[in-house]
Amino acid sequence: MDSKQSRRRQFLKNGAALAGLAAIPSAGGRILGAETPEPSSKDLHAYGERSRFENSSRTGTIGLWPPNPPPQGSRMDYGLRTPLQDQAGILTPPALHFVVSHSIDPPDIDPQEHRLLIHGLVDHPLVFTLEELKRLPRVTRVHFVECHGNSAPTGPTGVARKAPGATAQDTHGLTSCSEWTGVQLSLLLKEAGLQKGASWIVAEGAEPERHSKSIPLEKALDDCLVAYGQNGEAVRPDQGYPLRLVVPGWQGINNVKWLRRIKVVDEPYMAMRESTKYPSLRLDGKSRWFESEMGLKSVITRPSGGQRLAGPGFYEITGLAWSGGGFIRRVEVSVDGGRTWQDAQLQEPVHRKAHTRFGMGWTWDGEEAVLQSRSTDEQGEVQPTLAELGKLWGVNLDYFQSNSTAVMGNTNAIQPWKITRDGSVLNALV
Amino acid sequence: MDSKQSRRRQFLKNGAALAGLAAIPSAGGRILGAETPEPSSKDLHAYGERSRFENSSRTGTIGLWPPNPPPQGSRMDYGLRTPLQDQAGILTPPALHFVVSHSIDPPDIDPQEHRLLIHGLVDHPLVFTLEELKRLPRVTRVHFVECHGNSAPTGPTGVARKAPGATAQDTHGLTSCSEWTGVQLSLLLKEAGLQKGASWIVAEGAEPERHSKSIPLEKALDDCLVAYGQNGEAVRPDQGYPLRLVVPGWQGINNVKWLRRIKVVDEPYMAMRESTKYPSLRLDGKSRWFESEMGLKSVITRPSGGQRLAGPGFYEITGLAWSGGGFIRRVEVSVDGGRTWQDAQLQEPVHRKAHTRFGMGWTWDGEEAVLQSRSTDEQGEVQPTLAELGKLWGVNLDYFQSNSTAVMGNTNAIQPWKITRDGSVLNALV
Repeated sequence: MDSKQSRRRQFLKNGAALAGLAAIPSAGGRILGAETPEPSSKDLHAYGERSRFENSSRTGTIGLWPPNPPPQGSRMDYGLRTPLQDQAGILTPPALHFVVSHSIDPPDIDPQEHRLLIHGLVDHPLVFTLEELKRLPRVTRVHFVECHGNSAPTGPTGVARKAPGATAQDTHGLTSCSEWTGVQLSLLLKEAGLQKGASWIVAEGAEPERHSKSIPLEKALDDCLVAYGQNGEAVRPDQGYPLRLVVPGWQGINNVKWLRRIKVVDEPYMAMRESTKYPSLRLDGKSRWFESEMGLKSVITRPSGGQRLAGPGFYEITGLAWSGGGFIRRVEVSVDGGRTWQDAQLQEPVHRKAHTRFGMGWTWDGEEAVLQSRSTDEQGEVQPTLAELGKLWGVNLDYFQSNSTAVMGNTNAIQPWKITRDGSVLNALV
Repeated sequence: MDSKQSRRRQFLKNGAALAGLAAIPSAGGRILGAETPEPSSKDLHAYGERSRFENSSRTGTIGLWPPNPPPQGSRMDYGLRTPLQDQAGILTPPALHFVVSHSIDPPDIDPQEHRLLIHGLVDHPLVFTLEELKRLPRVTRVHFVECHGNSAPTGPTGVARKAPGATAQDTHGLTSCSEWTGVQLSLLLKEAGLQKGASWIVAEGAEPERHSKSIPLEKALDDCLVAYGQNGEAVRPDQGYPLRLVVPGWQGINNVKWLRRIKVVDEPYMAMRESTKYPSLRLDGKSRWFESEMGLKSVITRPSGGQRLAGPGFYEITGLAWSGGGFIRRVEVSVDGGRTWQDAQLQEPVHRKAHTRFGMGWTWDGEEAVLQSRSTDEQGEVQPTLAELGKLWGVNLDYFQSNSTAVMGNTNAIQPWKITRDGSVLNALV
């Protein structure tokens, strides 16, 4: 590479030198205490637990989907949804982070043994241990991750999504938001030295299936993270322990878990799940392979499906909005089925490509009402209704009601919740 | 109260009306799945756990302190320290949040039965259930909580704090940082209607000891929260489940756990732990009863005591800085024992009265070195060395080395870490 490229290699000498570095041991685990309490109490002192009265849980389908997957077809072994309706702020507790997995259980990886390889069209292939990565400049950013199929009213998951009794967890639970900490992927790629022709990367996981994903180099050099931290502690096993690639704002499938290898290449791999299923349609009507940015969405989480208002009076309407396009700039709320809208207040600070909490005061008069929110992002895109989305896609609402074979990805329709006179909150999408 | 006060009462009618409201049930706990996996696997699907290879833990002394406490004296039944050296970003995992408790185990509170009473010099005494509080406008803020005795080099905890082998957990582990969600205390007080003469509040917990703390009304109306959420889920039992008063930037003792009662009064109670022990000395030499704001601090968490550098080469120096006075504006790092200083980079966004992550690149040449950080907050205060602090307090370094009876609260001295030629990192405070 040129001298400019060489000057960038200020952090590490080369892969061989790095391989000789030992780990910095953690000092955790020491109990200095004098009087030893009973065992259960001692465990809680070392690492606490939530109250026994708290039962907020992930829910979802566990098992093969479709029931008889084609040999090279897409199959979702389980999809666990985050209980967004129970969430307090913008962060998802790691124990409740959504999971869409193609393996029944996450691999049981010893972090001392794990390596990250960076190779392909680079001057210096690099191998990193976890401790070596932790010697590099760290960045911490709050970002959402979202499955591309989240909130789709079609396909098998669409059945639960359209049910009158659906909760916010059922309708939008395949997204979560975390404080991610790690190393910028751009730093590692520059350190390895990009060669002429480099235009894509392929990221690969360490699970038995070796899920792989092609990502354009432009995105890889933009805002991607090789993350080892999630909400202050190690990335959880079902989120990719010990390393996860975080690709902010892009379909969940890009955020490769159990990251073990990044190969720099000159064209995209036609890997499963990038040439089929995951390409999607945007609001402007364009669609293309490898389209990966998630659209903008919002959902009211309180009051939301399955909850019940105690009676007339004041309620804050609160929820979450997010966009793969960047910052959420505005969220409007309607309490009359979309006839009129008012600006909700956004919780500061708003993070880029992160769940954004909104709230608006409302006094319920005890009559039927339909509550809904619509978000606007920094690119000026505005969330559409399902009818508007159907019109754009050339389908009518019957399509959404009847179709149960294909997931319509990136369905970001406004979510209406109907309040009945007895205070019940029902899904009113279709 | 006057009409202006009445107009503020827009949210709730009165205590009696609120008492009749039923709870909004949560929809959590449903498993929609078809194929049921083995029990242990199922539990992890509902609520995940960290990797079995992760052993970062709280450490501390469990038992009475002082060993023979005076009848009305201060006693600390346990103090559990956060492993700051293992933390990735700015958030503390709730399972690792520090605890200083005067009860051996947290009370086991059923949230359905819990009530918050607001009374005293108010027009309308109010009683809230948890669900009623969740109907009110919520705010979410990132704040640290810190024990006033954190990092004190005197008293019994000072022994471990000064040990050459002390870790960042030993020296500074009685502070943690969370995303807190709840209702502004000012909203509740205004809703109750403050009467003439109201100038203080007394907050009381529901544990057997009924810890109480007087807080000036001015602070109560400023930025205090009645928090039910911590990092997205319910406040943990050892942090006050189901309700905690968060008093940003003030001594931990003010952040009353298991909050059950707030009484508005016209003068401070002379409660235990506010008339003795906790008043402290500021950098400007002033001291007074009820002084509660924590000073500004910082500590390098990596490399830090107990860790070991693998060999010469690049290491990011990273750590945390915080101030009860507001935003951290600057952190400088010295790698030569304080002779020269360079500006570290602050992780954005910086939150007010919150842990702030800093980082600076450093190439270790293999020689002895002393690393330290000093922070500056928005008020322009600069962290002192221990020698400077001793001069201010009129004591010499011998005092810090020998005194083991009284905790010198708010000791915010610069923390030096010595790197030896074999890469070991040692505490170099005194």
